[in-house]
Amino acid sequence: MAAPDKPVLYSYFRSSCSWRVRIAFALKGIEYEQEAVNLIKDGGQQQSEKYKALNPMQQVPALCIDGITISQSLAIIQYLEDTRPGPHLLPQDPKMRAQVRMICDHIASGIQPLQNLYVLQKIGAEKVEWAQHFIVRGFQALELILLQTAGRYCVGDEISMADICLVPQVYNAERFKVDLTPFPTIKRLNETLIVMEAFQASHPSRQPDTPADLQV
Amino acid sequence: MAAPDKPVLYSYFRSSCSWRVRIAFALKGIEYEQEAVNLIKDGGQQQSEKYKALNPMQQVPALCIDGITISQSLAIIQYLEDTRPGPHLLPQDPKMRAQVRMICDHIASGIQPLQNLYVLQKIGAEKVEWAQHFIVRGFQALELILLQTAGRYCVGDEISMADICLVPQVYNAERFKVDLTPFPTIKRLNETLIVMEAFQASHPSRQPDTPADLQV
Repeated sequence: MAAPDKPVLYSYFRSSCSWRVRIAFALKGIEYEQEAVNLIKDGGQQQSEKYKALNPMQQVPALCIDGITISQSLAIIQYLEDTRPGPHLLPQDPKMRAQVRMICDHIASGIQPLQNLYVLQKIGAEKVEWAQHFIVRGFQALELILLQTAGRYCVGDEISMADICLVPQVYNAERFKVDLTPFPTIKRLNETLIVMEAFQASHPSRQPDTPADLQV
Repeated sequence: MAAPDKPVLYSYFRSSCSWRVRIAFALKGIEYEQEAVNLIKDGGQQQSEKYKALNPMQQVPALCIDGITISQSLAIIQYLEDTRPGPHLLPQDPKMRAQVRMICDHIASGIQPLQNLYVLQKIGAEKVEWAQHFIVRGFQALELILLQTAGRYCVGDEISMADICLVPQVYNAERFKVDLTPFPTIKRLNETLIVMEAFQASHPSRQPDTPADLQV
Protein backbone atom coordinates (compact mmCIF):
# COMPACT_ATOMS: atom_id res chain seq x y z
CA MET A 1 0.00 0.00 0.00
CA ALA A 2 1.11 3.55 -0.69
CA ALA A 3 1.80 5.91 2.17
CA PRO A 4 -1.32 8.05 2.56
CA ASP A 5 0.53 11.21 1.63
CA LYS A 6 2.00 9.89 -1.62
CA PRO A 7 -0.05 10.40 -4.78
CA VAL A 8 -1.07 7.13 -6.46
CA LEU A 9 -0.96 7.05 -10.26
CA TYR A 10 -3.07 4.43 -12.00
CA SER A 11 -1.27 3.86 -15.26
CA TYR A 12 -0.12 1.48 -17.97
CA PHE A 13 3.50 1.39 -19.04
CA ARG A 14 2.77 1.88 -22.75
CA SER A 15 -0.05 4.44 -22.46
CA SER A 16 1.23 7.74 -23.85
CA CYS A 17 -1.12 9.70 -21.60
CA SER A 18 0.24 7.88 -18.54
CA TRP A 19 3.76 8.67 -19.69
CA ARG A 20 2.91 12.39 -19.86
CA VAL A 21 2.05 12.37 -16.16
CA ARG A 22 5.16 10.37 -15.23
CA ILE A 23 7.32 12.96 -17.02
CA ALA A 24 5.65 15.76 -15.05
CA PHE A 25 6.29 13.92 -11.77
CA ALA A 26 9.92 13.37 -12.75
CA LEU A 27 10.50 16.99 -13.84
CA LYS A 28 9.06 18.28 -10.57
CA GLY A 29 10.82 15.61 -8.52
CA ILE A 30 7.60 14.43 -6.86
CA GLU A 31 7.50 10.96 -5.31
CA TYR A 32 4.50 8.83 -6.19
CA GLU A 33 3.27 5.25 -6.26
CA GLN A 34 2.18 3.47 -9.41
CA GLU A 35 -0.73 1.04 -9.62
CA ALA A 36 -0.64 -0.86 -12.90
CA VAL A 37 -3.84 -1.07 -14.95
CA ASN A 38 -3.15 -3.56 -17.73
CA LEU A 39 -5.20 -2.41 -20.72
CA ILE A 40 -4.85 -5.79 -22.51
CA LYS A 41 -4.87 -8.51 -19.83
CA ASP A 42 -8.21 -10.03 -18.71
CA GLY A 43 -9.94 -8.11 -21.52
CA GLY A 44 -8.58 -4.88 -20.05
CA GLN A 45 -8.33 -4.22 -16.30
CA GLN A 46 -9.72 -0.71 -16.89
CA GLN A 47 -13.09 -2.42 -17.39
CA SER A 48 -13.30 -3.55 -13.75
CA GLU A 49 -15.95 -2.02 -11.49
CA LYS A 50 -13.19 -1.05 -9.06
CA TYR A 51 -11.38 1.00 -11.69
CA LYS A 52 -14.59 2.41 -13.14
CA ALA A 53 -15.30 3.91 -9.71
CA LEU A 54 -11.97 5.76 -9.97
CA ASN A 55 -12.35 6.79 -13.61
CA PRO A 56 -15.79 6.31 -15.17
CA MET A 57 -14.24 6.71 -18.63
CA GLN A 58 -12.22 3.53 -17.95
CA GLN A 59 -9.01 4.97 -19.32
CA VAL A 60 -5.59 5.60 -17.83
CA PRO A 61 -4.19 7.63 -16.22
CA ALA A 62 -6.06 8.53 -13.05
CA LEU A 63 -4.38 10.13 -10.06
CA CYS A 64 -5.44 9.93 -6.42
CA ILE A 65 -3.96 12.98 -4.72
CA ASP A 66 -4.87 15.25 -1.82
CA GLY A 67 -8.12 13.35 -1.24
CA ILE A 68 -9.44 13.67 -4.79
CA THR A 69 -9.19 11.57 -7.96
CA ILE A 70 -8.34 13.32 -11.21
CA SER A 71 -8.48 11.78 -14.67
CA GLN A 72 -7.33 13.33 -17.96
CA SER A 73 -3.56 13.70 -18.13
CA LEU A 74 -3.43 17.44 -18.83
CA ALA A 75 -5.80 18.20 -15.95
CA ILE A 76 -3.55 16.12 -13.71
CA ILE A 77 -0.37 17.88 -14.84
CA GLN A 78 -1.99 21.29 -14.47
CA TYR A 79 -3.03 20.35 -10.90
CA LEU A 80 0.58 19.43 -10.12
CA GLU A 81 1.64 22.77 -11.61
CA ASP A 82 -0.93 24.62 -9.47
CA THR A 83 -0.12 22.89 -6.18
CA ARG A 84 3.46 21.60 -6.23
CA PRO A 85 6.80 23.40 -6.25
CA GLY A 86 9.57 22.62 -8.69
CA PRO A 87 10.29 23.80 -12.20
CA HIS A 88 7.36 25.50 -13.91
CA LEU A 89 5.75 23.44 -16.64
CA LEU A 90 4.07 26.51 -18.15
CA PRO A 91 5.86 29.74 -19.14
CA GLN A 92 5.07 32.87 -17.15
CA ASP A 93 4.48 34.91 -20.33
CA PRO A 94 0.78 34.59 -21.31
CA LYS A 95 1.48 34.43 -25.07
CA MET A 96 4.04 31.68 -24.68
CA ARG A 97 1.68 29.94 -22.26
CA ALA A 98 -1.01 30.06 -24.95
CA GLN A 99 1.41 28.49 -27.42
CA VAL A 100 2.24 25.71 -24.98
CA ARG A 101 -1.44 24.99 -24.39
CA MET A 102 -2.15 25.09 -28.13
CA ILE A 103 0.51 22.44 -28.77
CA CYS A 104 -0.68 20.31 -25.83
CA ASP A 105 -4.28 20.40 -27.06
CA HIS A 106 -3.20 19.82 -30.65
CA ILE A 107 -1.70 16.51 -29.50
CA ALA A 108 -4.16 15.64 -26.71
CA SER A 109 -7.32 16.45 -28.71
CA GLY A 110 -6.14 16.38 -32.32
CA ILE A 111 -3.92 13.31 -32.51
CA GLN A 112 -3.88 10.94 -29.53
CA PRO A 113 -7.66 10.33 -29.18
CA LEU A 114 -7.82 9.15 -32.79
CA GLN A 115 -5.14 6.52 -32.37
CA ASN A 116 -5.77 5.23 -28.88
CA LEU A 117 -6.43 1.60 -28.07
CA TYR A 118 -10.21 1.83 -27.79
CA VAL A 119 -10.65 3.56 -31.15
CA LEU A 120 -8.25 1.23 -32.94
CA GLN A 121 -10.07 -1.81 -31.55
CA LYS A 122 -13.26 -0.35 -33.04
CA ILE A 123 -11.57 0.33 -36.40
CA GLY A 124 -10.44 -3.28 -36.67
CA ALA A 125 -8.43 -4.53 -39.65
CA GLU A 126 -7.54 -1.06 -40.99
CA LYS A 127 -6.19 0.11 -37.65
CA VAL A 128 -2.55 0.64 -38.58
CA GLU A 129 -3.39 2.75 -41.65
CA TRP A 130 -5.95 4.70 -39.57
CA ALA A 131 -3.42 5.45 -36.81
CA GLN A 132 -0.74 6.41 -39.33
CA HIS A 133 -3.15 8.71 -41.15
CA PHE A 134 -4.09 10.68 -38.04
CA ILE A 135 -0.55 10.87 -36.69
CA VAL A 136 0.83 12.08 -40.04
CA ARG A 137 -1.98 14.61 -40.43
CA GLY A 138 -1.37 15.93 -36.91
CA PHE A 139 2.41 16.00 -37.34
CA GLN A 140 2.16 17.90 -40.64
CA ALA A 141 0.37 20.71 -38.80
CA LEU A 142 2.52 20.39 -35.68
CA GLU A 143 5.73 20.73 -37.68
CA LEU A 144 4.49 24.08 -39.05
CA ILE A 145 3.42 25.25 -35.58
CA LEU A 146 6.76 24.27 -34.02
CA LEU A 147 8.68 26.11 -36.74
CA GLN A 148 7.11 29.26 -35.29
CA THR A 149 7.31 28.47 -31.57
CA ALA A 150 10.34 26.28 -30.95
CA GLY A 151 13.67 27.24 -29.54
CA ARG A 152 15.68 24.60 -27.79
CA TYR A 153 12.34 23.08 -26.76
CA CYS A 154 8.79 23.17 -28.18
CA VAL A 155 8.14 26.74 -27.07
CA GLY A 156 11.27 28.83 -26.58
CA ASP A 157 14.12 27.59 -24.46
CA GLU A 158 12.34 26.20 -21.42
CA ILE A 159 10.82 22.78 -20.98
CA SER A 160 7.03 22.87 -20.76
CA MET A 161 3.89 20.77 -20.92
CA ALA A 162 4.24 20.90 -24.71
CA ASP A 163 7.44 18.85 -24.50
CA ILE A 164 5.70 16.48 -22.09
CA CYS A 165 3.07 15.85 -24.76
CA LEU A 166 5.45 15.70 -27.72
CA VAL A 167 7.75 12.86 -26.69
CA PRO A 168 5.05 10.24 -25.91
CA GLN A 169 3.30 11.11 -29.18
CA VAL A 170 6.54 10.55 -31.11
CA TYR A 171 6.86 7.22 -29.28
CA ASN A 172 3.39 6.28 -30.57
CA ALA A 173 4.36 7.41 -34.06
CA GLU A 174 7.38 5.12 -33.95
CA ARG A 175 5.25 2.19 -32.73
CA PHE A 176 3.04 2.69 -35.80
CA LYS A 177 6.13 3.01 -38.03
CA VAL A 178 5.43 6.58 -39.11
CA ASP A 179 8.37 7.98 -41.09
CA LEU A 180 9.59 11.07 -39.22
CA THR A 181 11.82 12.35 -42.05
CA PRO A 182 9.22 14.93 -43.19
CA PHE A 183 9.14 16.37 -39.65
CA PRO A 184 12.67 17.58 -38.90
CA THR A 185 11.65 19.94 -36.09
CA ILE A 186 9.62 17.27 -34.30
CA LYS A 187 12.52 14.86 -34.76
CA ARG A 188 15.10 17.33 -33.47
CA LEU A 189 13.04 18.26 -30.40
CA ASN A 190 12.36 14.62 -29.58
CA GLU A 191 16.06 13.78 -29.83
CA THR A 192 16.93 16.65 -27.47
CA LEU A 193 14.27 15.67 -24.93
CA ILE A 194 14.38 11.88 -24.94
CA VAL A 195 17.90 11.69 -23.50
CA MET A 196 16.98 13.80 -20.46
CA GLU A 197 16.73 12.09 -17.08
CA ALA A 198 13.02 12.90 -16.54
CA PHE A 199 12.10 11.38 -19.89
CA GLN A 200 14.35 8.34 -19.41
CA ALA A 201 13.17 7.47 -15.88
CA SER A 202 9.54 7.72 -16.97
CA HIS A 203 10.01 5.82 -20.24
CA PRO A 204 7.58 2.96 -21.04
CA SER A 205 10.47 0.51 -21.21
CA ARG A 206 11.39 1.17 -17.59
CA GLN A 207 8.20 0.95 -15.52
CA PRO A 208 7.21 -1.53 -12.79
CA ASP A 209 4.62 -3.07 -15.14
CA THR A 210 6.84 -3.22 -18.23
CA PRO A 211 6.99 -6.86 -19.39
CA ALA A 212 10.50 -8.31 -19.14
CA ASP A 213 10.92 -8.65 -22.92
CA LEU A 214 10.19 -4.95 -23.46
CA GLN A 215 12.54 -3.66 -20.80
CA VAL A 216 15.72 -1.92 -21.91
CA MET B 1 -12.06 45.14 -41.64
CA ALA B 2 -11.87 44.70 -37.90
CA ALA B 3 -10.44 47.48 -35.79
CA PRO B 4 -6.83 46.52 -35.08
CA ASP B 5 -7.48 46.17 -31.36
CA LYS B 6 -10.45 43.82 -31.66
CA PRO B 7 -9.73 40.09 -31.62
CA VAL B 8 -10.78 38.29 -34.80
CA LEU B 9 -12.34 34.86 -34.39
CA TYR B 10 -12.24 32.54 -37.37
CA SER B 11 -15.20 30.27 -36.84
CA TYR B 12 -18.13 28.35 -38.29
CA PHE B 13 -21.61 28.77 -36.88
CA ARG B 14 -22.20 25.05 -36.27
CA SER B 15 -18.73 24.12 -35.00
CA SER B 16 -19.03 23.19 -31.32
CA CYS B 17 -15.42 24.25 -30.67
CA SER B 18 -16.13 27.68 -32.20
CA TRP B 19 -19.21 27.97 -30.00
CA ARG B 20 -17.10 27.31 -26.89
CA VAL B 21 -15.00 30.39 -27.67
CA ARG B 22 -18.05 32.52 -28.45
CA ILE B 23 -19.52 31.64 -25.04
CA ALA B 24 -16.28 32.68 -23.32
CA PHE B 25 -16.30 36.02 -25.16
CA ALA B 26 -19.93 36.55 -24.19
CA LEU B 27 -19.42 35.63 -20.52
CA LYS B 28 -16.47 38.01 -20.27
CA GLY B 29 -18.23 40.72 -22.28
CA ILE B 30 -15.35 41.02 -24.78
CA GLU B 31 -16.05 42.55 -28.20
CA TYR B 32 -14.69 40.66 -31.18
CA GLU B 33 -15.09 40.26 -34.91
CA GLN B 34 -16.05 37.00 -36.59
CA GLU B 35 -14.64 35.80 -39.89
CA ALA B 36 -16.69 32.91 -41.23
CA VAL B 37 -14.87 29.78 -42.39
CA ASN B 38 -17.46 27.60 -44.08
CA LEU B 39 -16.43 23.99 -43.46
CA ILE B 40 -18.71 22.64 -46.21
CA LYS B 41 -18.76 25.20 -49.05
CA ASP B 42 -16.14 25.00 -51.84
CA GLY B 43 -14.97 21.65 -50.39
CA GLY B 44 -14.29 23.41 -47.07
CA GLN B 45 -12.83 26.90 -46.82
CA GLN B 46 -10.51 25.67 -44.04
CA GLN B 47 -8.53 23.96 -46.83
CA SER B 48 -7.43 27.28 -48.36
CA GLU B 49 -3.77 28.26 -48.23
CA LYS B 50 -4.79 31.53 -46.57
CA TYR B 51 -6.50 29.72 -43.71
CA LYS B 52 -3.79 27.08 -43.45
CA ALA B 53 -1.32 29.88 -42.72
CA LEU B 54 -3.48 30.86 -39.74
CA ASN B 55 -4.11 27.32 -38.51
CA PRO B 56 -2.01 24.56 -40.06
CA MET B 57 -4.47 21.96 -38.71
CA GLN B 58 -7.15 23.52 -40.95
CA GLN B 59 -9.81 23.47 -38.25
CA VAL B 60 -11.86 26.15 -36.57
CA PRO B 61 -11.64 28.09 -34.37
CA ALA B 62 -8.53 30.23 -34.61
CA LEU B 63 -8.19 33.56 -32.87
CA CYS B 64 -6.00 36.51 -33.87
CA ILE B 65 -5.41 38.51 -30.70
CA ASP B 66 -2.66 40.73 -29.32
CA GLY B 67 -0.46 40.05 -32.35
CA ILE B 68 -0.55 36.27 -32.14
CA THR B 69 -2.78 33.54 -33.59
CA ILE B 70 -4.03 30.82 -31.28
CA SER B 71 -5.81 27.64 -32.35
CA GLN B 72 -7.42 25.00 -30.09
CA SER B 73 -10.51 26.32 -28.31
CA LEU B 74 -9.42 25.55 -24.74
CA ALA B 75 -6.04 27.24 -25.27
CA ILE B 76 -7.90 30.28 -26.61
CA ILE B 77 -10.31 30.41 -23.66
CA GLN B 78 -7.47 29.96 -21.19
CA TYR B 79 -5.62 32.88 -22.85
CA LEU B 80 -8.72 35.06 -22.43
CA GLU B 81 -8.86 33.96 -18.79
CA ASP B 82 -5.17 34.84 -18.32
CA THR B 83 -5.31 38.24 -19.99
CA ARG B 84 -8.84 39.67 -19.83
CA PRO B 85 -10.96 40.89 -16.91
CA GLY B 86 -14.52 39.76 -16.30
CA PRO B 87 -15.97 36.76 -14.52
CA HIS B 88 -13.48 33.97 -13.86
CA LEU B 89 -13.94 30.90 -16.04
CA LEU B 90 -11.89 28.73 -13.67
CA PRO B 91 -12.51 28.38 -9.91
CA GLN B 92 -9.88 29.78 -7.56
CA ASP B 93 -9.76 26.54 -5.54
CA PRO B 94 -7.16 24.20 -7.11
CA LYS B 95 -9.22 21.04 -6.55
CA MET B 96 -12.32 22.50 -8.16
CA ARG B 97 -10.10 23.88 -10.93
CA ALA B 98 -8.80 20.34 -11.52
CA GLN B 99 -12.38 19.07 -11.75
CA VAL B 100 -13.25 21.77 -14.28
CA ARG B 101 -10.22 20.90 -16.39
CA MET B 102 -10.97 17.19 -16.14
CA ILE B 103 -14.49 17.76 -17.49
CA CYS B 104 -13.22 20.07 -20.25
CA ASP B 105 -10.63 17.53 -21.38
CA HIS B 106 -13.11 14.68 -21.09
CA ILE B 107 -15.24 16.47 -23.69
CA ALA B 108 -12.47 18.10 -25.74
CA SER B 109 -10.25 15.00 -25.95
CA GLY B 110 -12.62 12.14 -25.15
CA ILE B 111 -15.76 12.97 -27.12
CA GLN B 112 -15.61 15.83 -29.63
CA PRO B 113 -12.54 14.70 -31.65
CA LEU B 114 -14.23 11.38 -32.38
CA GLN B 115 -17.36 12.92 -33.84
CA ASN B 116 -16.02 15.96 -35.67
CA LEU B 117 -16.60 16.59 -39.35
CA TYR B 118 -13.22 15.35 -40.58
CA VAL B 119 -13.43 12.01 -38.77
CA LEU B 120 -17.04 11.40 -39.80
CA GLN B 121 -16.17 12.09 -43.44
CA LYS B 122 -13.49 9.43 -43.11
CA ILE B 123 -15.89 6.96 -41.47
CA GLY B 124 -18.37 7.32 -44.32
CA ALA B 125 -21.67 5.42 -44.36
CA GLU B 126 -21.55 4.40 -40.70
CA LYS B 127 -20.96 7.94 -39.50
CA VAL B 128 -24.18 8.50 -37.53
CA GLU B 129 -23.80 5.26 -35.55
CA TRP B 130 -20.11 6.06 -34.97
CA ALA B 131 -20.89 9.56 -33.64
CA GLN B 132 -23.70 8.26 -31.45
CA HIS B 133 -21.47 5.54 -30.04
CA PHE B 134 -18.74 7.93 -28.95
CA ILE B 135 -21.12 10.56 -27.60
CA VAL B 136 -23.07 7.97 -25.57
CA ARG B 137 -19.86 6.41 -24.26
CA GLY B 138 -18.54 9.83 -23.24
CA PHE B 139 -21.84 10.90 -21.69
CA GLN B 140 -22.14 7.69 -19.65
CA ALA B 141 -18.84 8.56 -17.96
CA LEU B 142 -19.58 12.29 -17.82
CA GLU B 143 -22.90 11.69 -16.06
CA LEU B 144 -21.07 9.81 -13.28
CA ILE B 145 -18.40 12.51 -13.01
CA LEU B 146 -20.99 15.30 -12.85
CA LEU B 147 -22.91 13.48 -10.11
CA GLN B 148 -19.82 14.06 -7.97
CA THR B 149 -18.90 17.60 -9.06
CA ALA B 150 -22.08 19.45 -10.02
CA GLY B 151 -23.98 21.99 -8.03
CA ARG B 152 -26.05 24.51 -9.92
CA TYR B 153 -23.43 24.22 -12.70
CA CYS B 154 -20.97 21.51 -13.78
CA VAL B 155 -18.60 22.13 -10.86
CA GLY B 156 -20.22 23.72 -7.84
CA ASP B 157 -22.31 26.84 -8.16
CA GLU B 158 -20.20 29.00 -10.44
CA ILE B 159 -20.09 28.94 -14.22
CA SER B 160 -16.81 27.66 -15.59
CA MET B 161 -15.04 26.36 -18.68
CA ALA B 162 -16.71 23.01 -17.98
CA ASP B 163 -20.12 24.55 -18.69
CA ILE B 164 -18.67 26.19 -21.80
CA CYS B 165 -17.71 22.72 -23.07
CA LEU B 166 -20.89 20.95 -21.96
CA VAL B 167 -23.55 22.92 -23.83
CA PRO B 168 -22.02 22.69 -27.34
CA GLN B 169 -21.44 18.95 -26.81
CA VAL B 170 -25.11 18.48 -25.88
CA TYR B 171 -26.00 20.43 -29.05
CA ASN B 172 -23.93 17.94 -31.05
CA ALA B 173 -25.62 15.04 -29.24
CA GLU B 174 -29.02 16.43 -30.22
CA ARG B 175 -27.91 16.84 -33.85
CA PHE B 176 -27.01 13.15 -33.87
CA LYS B 177 -30.32 12.28 -32.16
CA VAL B 178 -28.74 10.86 -29.01
CA ASP B 179 -31.42 10.14 -26.39
CA LEU B 180 -30.51 12.21 -23.31
CA THR B 181 -32.95 10.43 -20.97
CA PRO B 182 -30.19 8.24 -19.44
CA PHE B 183 -28.21 11.40 -18.56
CA PRO B 184 -30.44 13.43 -16.21
CA THR B 185 -27.60 15.51 -14.75
CA ILE B 186 -26.26 16.47 -18.18
CA LYS B 187 -29.82 17.31 -19.26
CA ARG B 188 -30.54 19.40 -16.17
CA LEU B 189 -27.28 21.36 -16.44
CA ASN B 190 -27.83 22.00 -20.14
CA GLU B 191 -31.36 23.28 -19.50
CA THR B 192 -30.07 25.64 -16.81
CA LEU B 193 -27.28 26.97 -19.00
CA ILE B 194 -28.84 27.18 -22.45
CA VAL B 195 -31.33 29.88 -21.48
CA MET B 196 -28.61 32.22 -20.24
CA GLU B 197 -27.80 35.30 -22.31
CA ALA B 198 -24.17 34.31 -23.01
CA PHE B 199 -25.23 30.93 -24.37
CA GLN B 200 -28.13 32.37 -26.36
CA ALA B 201 -26.17 35.20 -28.02
CA SER B 202 -23.43 32.78 -29.03
CA HIS B 203 -25.79 30.03 -30.22
CA PRO B 204 -25.17 28.47 -33.67
CA SER B 205 -28.62 29.56 -34.81
CA ARG B 206 -27.77 33.22 -34.29
CA GLN B 207 -24.40 33.86 -35.93
CA PRO B 208 -23.51 36.10 -38.89
CA ASP B 209 -22.82 33.01 -41.01
CA THR B 210 -25.91 31.02 -39.96
CA PRO B 211 -27.89 30.18 -43.12
CA ALA B 212 -31.32 31.86 -43.17
CA ASP B 213 -33.23 28.57 -42.89
CA LEU B 214 -31.37 27.62 -39.69
CA GLN B 215 -31.83 30.95 -37.93
CA VAL B 216 -34.26 31.09 -35.03
